[in-house]
Amino acid sequence: MVETNEDAALWSGRARLEARIFEFTVGDDPQLDERLATYDCIGSAAHARGLAKVGLLSKMDVLALLDALQRLHQQMQNGEWKIAASFEDGHTAIEMALTAQLGDTGKRIHLGRSRNDQALLMMRLYLRDKALSMHAQVAELADALLQLAQKNQEVELPGYTHQRKAMPSSAAMWATGFAEGLMEELHAFDGLYSRLEACPLGAAAGFGVPLPLDREYVARILGFAKVQRSPVDCMNSRGRMELACLRWFETINHTLEKLLCDIALFSTEEFGFIGLPENYTTGSSIMPQKRNPDVVELLRGKLRGQRGAAESVLSISSGLTSSYHRDFQLLKAPTLHAFDEQSQILDLLIDLVANLSFDKNRCAAACGAEIYAAQAAFDLVASGRTFRDAYKEIANQLSAGTLPAKRVSSASHIGGLGDLRLDDVALDVEEIRALWRSESARIDQQLKTIWSMD
Amino acid sequence: MVETNEDAALWSGRARLEARIFEFTVGDDPQLDERLATYDCIGSAAHARGLAKVGLLSKMDVLALLDALQRLHQQMQNGEWKIAASFEDGHTAIEMALTAQLGDTGKRIHLGRSRNDQALLMMRLYLRDKALSMHAQVAELADALLQLAQKNQEVELPGYTHQRKAMPSSAAMWATGFAEGLMEELHAFDGLYSRLEACPLGAAAGFGVPLPLDREYVARILGFAKVQRSPVDCMNSRGRMELACLRWFETINHTLEKLLCDIALFSTEEFGFIGLPENYTTGSSIMPQKRNPDVVELLRGKLRGQRGAAESVLSISSGLTSSYHRDFQLLKAPTLHAFDEQSQILDLLIDLVANLSFDKNRCAAACGAEIYAAQAAFDLVASGRTFRDAYKEIANQLSAGTLPAKRVSSASHIGGLGDLRLDDVALDVEEIRALWRSESARIDQQLKTIWSMD
Amino acid sequence: MVETNEDAALWSGRARLEARIFEFTVGDDPQLDERLATYDCIGSAAHARGLAKVGLLSKMDVLALLDALQRLHQQMQNGEWKIAASFEDGHTAIEMALTAQLGDTGKRIHLGRSRNDQALLMMRLYLRDKALSMHAQVAELADALLQLAQKNQEVELPGYTHQRKAMPSSAAMWATGFAEGLMEELHAFDGLYSRLEACPLGAAAGFGVPLPLDREYVARILGFAKVQRSPVDCMNSRGRMELACLRWFETINHTLEKLLCDIALFSTEEFGFIGLPENYTTGSSIMPQKRNPDVVELLRGKLRGQRGAAESVLSISSGLTSSYHRDFQLLKAPTLHAFDEQSQILDLLIDLVANLSFDKNRCAAACGAEIYAAQAAFDLVASGRTFRDAYKEIANQLSAGTLPAKRVSSASHIGGLGDLRLDDVALDVEEIRALWRSESARIDQQLKTIWSMD
Amino acid sequence: MVETNEDAALWSGRARLEARIFEFTVGDDPQLDERLATYDCIGSAAHARGLAKVGLLSKMDVLALLDALQRLHQQMQNGEWKIAASFEDGHTAIEMALTAQLGDTGKRIHLGRSRNDQALLMMRLYLRDKALSMHAQVAELADALLQLAQKNQEVELPGYTHQRKAMPSSAAMWATGFAEGLMEELHAFDGLYSRLEACPLGAAAGFGVPLPLDREYVARILGFAKVQRSPVDCMNSRGRMELACLRWFETINHTLEKLLCDIALFSTEEFGFIGLPENYTTGSSIMPQKRNPDVVELLRGKLRGQRGAAESVLSISSGLTSSYHRDFQLLKAPTLHAFDEQSQILDLLIDLVANLSFDKNRCAAACGAEIYAAQAAFDLVASGRTFRDAYKEIANQLSAGTLPAKRVSSASHIGGLGDLRLDDVALDVEEIRALWRSESARIDQQLKTIWSMD
Repeated sequence: MVETNEDAALWSGRARLEARIFEFTVGDDPQLDERLATYDCIGSAAHARGLAKVGLLSKMDVLALLDALQRLHQQMQNGEWKIAASFEDGHTAIEMALTAQLGDTGKRIHLGRSRNDQALLMMRLYLRDKALSMHAQVAELADALLQLAQKNQEVELPGYTHQRKAMPSSAAMWATGFAEGLMEELHAFDGLYSRLEACPLGAAAGFGVPLPLDREYVARILGFAKVQRSPVDCMNSRGRMELACLRWFETINHTLEKLLCDIALFSTEEFGFIGLPENYTTGSSIMPQKRNPDVVELLRGKLRGQRGAAESVLSISSGLTSSYHRDFQLLKAPTLHAFDEQSQILDLLIDLVANLSFDKNRCAAACGAEIYAAQAAFDLVASGRTFRDAYKEIANQLSAGTLPAKRVSSASHIGGLGDLRLDDVALDVEEIRALWRSESARIDQQLKTIWSMD
Repeated sequence: MVETNEDAALWSGRARLEARIFEFTVGDDPQLDERLATYDCIGSAAHARGLAKVGLLSKMDVLALLDALQRLHQQMQNGEWKIAASFEDGHTAIEMALTAQLGDTGKRIHLGRSRNDQALLMMRLYLRDKALSMHAQVAELADALLQLAQKNQEVELPGYTHQRKAMPSSAAMWATGFAEGLMEELHAFDGLYSRLEACPLGAAAGFGVPLPLDREYVARILGFAKVQRSPVDCMNSRGRMELACLRWFETINHTLEKLLCDIALFSTEEFGFIGLPENYTTGSSIMPQKRNPDVVELLRGKLRGQRGAAESVLSISSGLTSSYHRDFQLLKAPTLHAFDEQSQILDLLIDLVANLSFDKNRCAAACGAEIYAAQAAFDLVASGRTFRDAYKEIANQLSAGTLPAKRVSSASHIGGLGDLRLDDVALDVEEIRALWRSESARIDQQLKTIWSMD
Repeated sequence: MVETNEDAALWSGRARLEARIFEFTVGDDPQLDERLATYDCIGSAAHARGLAKVGLLSKMDVLALLDALQRLHQQMQNGEWKIAASFEDGHTAIEMALTAQLGDTGKRIHLGRSRNDQALLMMRLYLRDKALSMHAQVAELADALLQLAQKNQEVELPGYTHQRKAMPSSAAMWATGFAEGLMEELHAFDGLYSRLEACPLGAAAGFGVPLPLDREYVARILGFAKVQRSPVDCMNSRGRMELACLRWFETINHTLEKLLCDIALFSTEEFGFIGLPENYTTGSSIMPQKRNPDVVELLRGKLRGQRGAAESVLSISSGLTSSYHRDFQLLKAPTLHAFDEQSQILDLLIDLVANLSFDKNRCAAACGAEIYAAQAAFDLVASGRTFRDAYKEIANQLSAGTLPAKRVSSASHIGGLGDLRLDDVALDVEEIRALWRSESARIDQQLKTIWSMD
Repeated sequence: MVETNEDAALWSGRARLEARIFEFTVGDDPQLDERLATYDCIGSAAHARGLAKVGLLSKMDVLALLDALQRLHQQMQNGEWKIAASFEDGHTAIEMALTAQLGDTGKRIHLGRSRNDQALLMMRLYLRDKALSMHAQVAELADALLQLAQKNQEVELPGYTHQRKAMPSSAAMWATGFAEGLMEELHAFDGLYSRLEACPLGAAAGFGVPLPLDREYVARILGFAKVQRSPVDCMNSRGRMELACLRWFETINHTLEKLLCDIALFSTEEFGFIGLPENYTTGSSIMPQKRNPDVVELLRGKLRGQRGAAESVLSISSGLTSSYHRDFQLLKAPTLHAFDEQSQILDLLIDLVANLSFDKNRCAAACGAEIYAAQAAFDLVASGRTFRDAYKEIANQLSAGTLPAKRVSSASHIGGLGDLRLDDVALDVEEIRALWRSESARIDQQLKTIWSMD
């Protein structure tokens, strides 16, 4: 039998709970909660202020609590705070710390909230914070891709369809394509964010509490745009919020996977368009000649592995009736894992993209006459033929080997080789990034004021 | 060997293509394209006008094409248009029809576009249209839930956590919870819509065309807010758009599954809170006494089955380098299936919710004194105890059987039993619904003008 | 209101069931059941004989039923049998046909069984039949791969790791690798089959019936190895059996996806190792020079799309308490779809593999000196160096460009280039194929006797 | 920059590799490999013996290596062995340890094998070992369920379909159903095991080595039934093996999820059939009256979360050409996680099942007359009515309230209430368990001899 902390076992006859079941129910909560505890402190501060606001906590008590919470928060940020397994989770650990320091005052903070209410708020704050950071990273990667495009404007590239050479393209066109794909994500983000900017505090166990809480006040001091009104929906949103974030990663990764697959292919000896920075490759234990694109492969693998985290989150929070179930505790691990992985993927990709080089000669050599066949057909159209007929004639010339050599592309429409609009794209990225950077700053500013009663 | 239409086999030496391979590559495209053909007509009209705009098609040609396309569109809407398997798909069938009617003029419409460009636009128009319809359906369901709440304001209900009775709730609180969950989806929709309001036409095979297309013009006449600039990204977005839609369904269903699981449970003899309309139940072939909630079960099953469609869409469009691959043809079937199913699910749920009844007496009887225990503890707090101490005392009273009988709930905060804010929620639903209804009307209006050259 | 067949609406007050709900509950059952009806006839014949065996059906009745069922079965096989939507599903349609022909005798066949019992048996017979056919197809594909290996024994190929040239390989080594992967599936099949060879008939609604059924007798005459004893487990196995089949496809496809990705890559201009038969490629509507590997791409896409079917089956049959739920009806569509697709994939792959050709010269040209570097290191080891030291020296020679040219491979161990054991593999394939072919024949033989009482 | 161990960076110019990339490529390999290192030692011993067998290693060298490996193995088992992050992974750490102790002899062990070859064997040994343990756990759980059935033979229970009372059942029938479901898994295991009993060693980098390795010898001394002949297939089987294991868990969990959902439901106040041992429940922080079934919920959540691990494994190993890719390194984490979780789930369920109690009175009270309606109909059939007619009459009696009270069940067929065959099932479990226990013992015995040259 593990020694469980008598006081920690607040509300249950857990004394006789066998260590094994205790361990099972605790799981990896202490480690996960160590990473989430700063959010719990912030949420607790808001709750304390909310109680004081409606007279459920004395001025003295709230000041003592805010002070203690701020100091705890500082310790956590300094990495000086550990949760003993016997405390079961971070909520208990914080409450114990408050009670140890403040006695009865420490106990009073739990009035009018439930542990799952508290856990929900903590996760909401985490998701809002990390989603905003992720937005910044995606913007940075889009920017890196645009710079790559800028740097390599002179590099011709065959455009592939069905993985076969098709039409003239360029390194800039290729890189810009991914930047634009990411920009769609940067814009679609507001759908996700509209979910995250609602404050669940006050849902208690999922049915509110018989106390006159001022939910709008706590939402406001936490920087939320609105109250998530329905306590039932607050509970029902466990998993839904996490899933929405992970599905946003999914569409981001839908684009990034193509980028990585292209890089892996274009850097083979057979294609030879792209050179990988040497520190992004490793050797072989058995073949001295090999330079393997390990980092690209690991990025691709990690990105694909993200599907599992989303599947877990969806499965754990599905198949249930409404309201709270203990199953939800298990949402934390795959969610935090997915955020960590996603951030790491973006982080390394930003660097990788910044360090890619194109082999201009091999790229040019790959642009044979055949990729201009469609253009040759269009040229015939310009002299009055239908496209279908022009198509047939060029096909015949190709078979006969009489198709004239390559020509200057005149794709002058928006997005065409002659009009990539790199500046417009760069401006769009900068705008959307600035928008969310300012939202991020607003929240940081707001949360700095959480420790003092207004 | 199947007889393939000589003319239909436009650009390939398909003459020798064996029937079996032909059938395999065609797949179910003719049937699917029959459902999508109206969108293809609209897209083709825009393309013709775009060509004319920049002088690549004569005034006479474009008028002839617009007239023919409008008549085809009418036939399609009347269900009088079938695609023969020998035509391979709807694009070919339309082109054949135009050529049959207009000769060379019919052939000229294919200038400056590729079949996958055309397919992409057709799907984009479909997705935009159907996503807007789905928004309307979700709003209608939210509304039905609010009406259910309104109708049953007097019905008490125990609130459950861990599927155990926890705290006082009500039928109105329960129903409103789901309405609010849906409202989050109605709001998050703009993230999805921002993806769909970009016009891909002009991407051609994924690298633009050497023609001075006016992409902004065609985007505008199709009612799109912007051009999807990068042709590379246009191709890369195959699957991404479909996936984004299906993931929106997923979060909707995350909420609806809970609703269905609650209904299934609450309508059992053991719970007995909810009565199902008789026509939503069926009997048993072997047990004369049974009334089975078949419709609820099939709704639940269909909703869960939607995970498969999303998995298919994701898997088919993953694991590929950038640009176009024939694999994308296979995205249509799961996408259309998912939209059909989702629409049917919402449709029946709206009716089901409208016909649910609560057994007021059984609901009241289920609200025993124990669900007021937390409130009793709060009452003690009001007289100066810490919550933790109050908790212990009430726990003792419960064990001793001395806990006083139930009391009036005073949960007067936002979302609490005393302040559900049904009117606010209803107003919010109405606002967001009106917003998108007007966008829908704008597009319908715009598309009505597609057939005439401005 | 749709006119429902009065008699068809056997056990419910469905008269007032609105058409829309009726249509919803019926779904695509009629079409699906048309494909499954032969199995239902066979199962019904066994049930009738089982009832007669224990005296619950007279000799005259059973003979009349068997005769009528055999004639129905014949009609179904001739494609002359359609299920009207008003009949709801195949079970009702068959019962109606029997009752129409035989009056009360027709009604007697439903004694001691439930519709879901009947549906379960029908699916079990389907799964057993189709799984055995799939085994035969997989064996045929393995065989085709071995023949490809045999035909191309002289073709050298670079072996790739990390998609970079690594070591000497050959077309035969490459093709044999996939054949061996499939052989693992052919062997692992017995785990799957052990599930399918248990007869569920007699489970009734999931709790047996108060009748002295002889379940071992009906299992025997249906060719099953055993009775699935527990009626509760019979119901619980809905979905589990289907899933087990689809997961077998999944591991098969895990191997086949690699085969298709290799073919797609090796047939690019850049690699050029493999030539695709012309009828497996198609042209482009815009680029006259293109030959696209459409069939390979569609095979790859279909194979990946199979993940969705499995996800649906798993999701539909999960999240439920034990025993029967109407949700299970929805398992049929994804299951049949998955079997159809899988069979088509295998069918076309067998042909494709048989028609692949290698470009011997390009393959040889790709085998540069560097892929023999590891071997050069091993040669040094043979003269007494440690591998690590040899590795360093060869790496130095490579950098200095002094590594001697390529040499004869001496990989003489099992599976090495010098000892591929094609004959052993072919023998293994033949053995395992013969084993299951004979099981298949045994069952066919057994089912031919189902129509007459022994 | 992290200090990387100069010697550890054996084969690459990693000196300049930035710490961040190094950390990224290393990932959590050191921690994972600490858990796998015993298998690597065993595999290395076999490889050393194999080299000696064909004269590629001297007698003295092999004895020194075996001795050192055995001591390392002992340290690992004692938990005294840690892998420094600078060593990158366990393979390097072991090689370093051997080289430190034995000098050049330590280096010689790497002759004729590649790191991914080594990793593959290590995982194969792990999977074989853990899969056998899992079989034993599943058998134990089946046994616990049978004992539960045995203990509660007198407990009547209503049988539910559509979650509505349907027919008479019993606690024993219910528990046996799950035991039988698990037995199917115990039998299907041989399909999985047939994959795992093939030895991959000798595949090297995926194309064999130019050395006369005796692959049959190393397979034999490692207790494998056969050699996985094709080196290409060895590489291709990365992920496939892991997936096959996880899919076996999936079907196990398909059954167990139903068990857990039943327990969760049957232990509600509303049903009240099952009592949970008190230490499997916990209290609420806000509601003193609550006893929540947390352990049941966490088991359910963990079981559902397993879907994510399988999705990761599938996704990481898909979308690739044949042979080795670095992505495969990422298969370890989800695989080990899934095995840990599955083992923990089974472990706790065995205990939980052993401690379940039935409330005999509430169970009996729930068995109202209506669940005997089908039987009443059958009784009428016995007096010569068709079932359909009997069904109608009983339905009328039910409506009229004249259906006679409940009667003794006579379901005397196999699996029916009167013939559950608990002894047969128990015997089957014992047989299959003994079979695999003996395979397990055989392997343990065989591996004990690995350290000495025969």
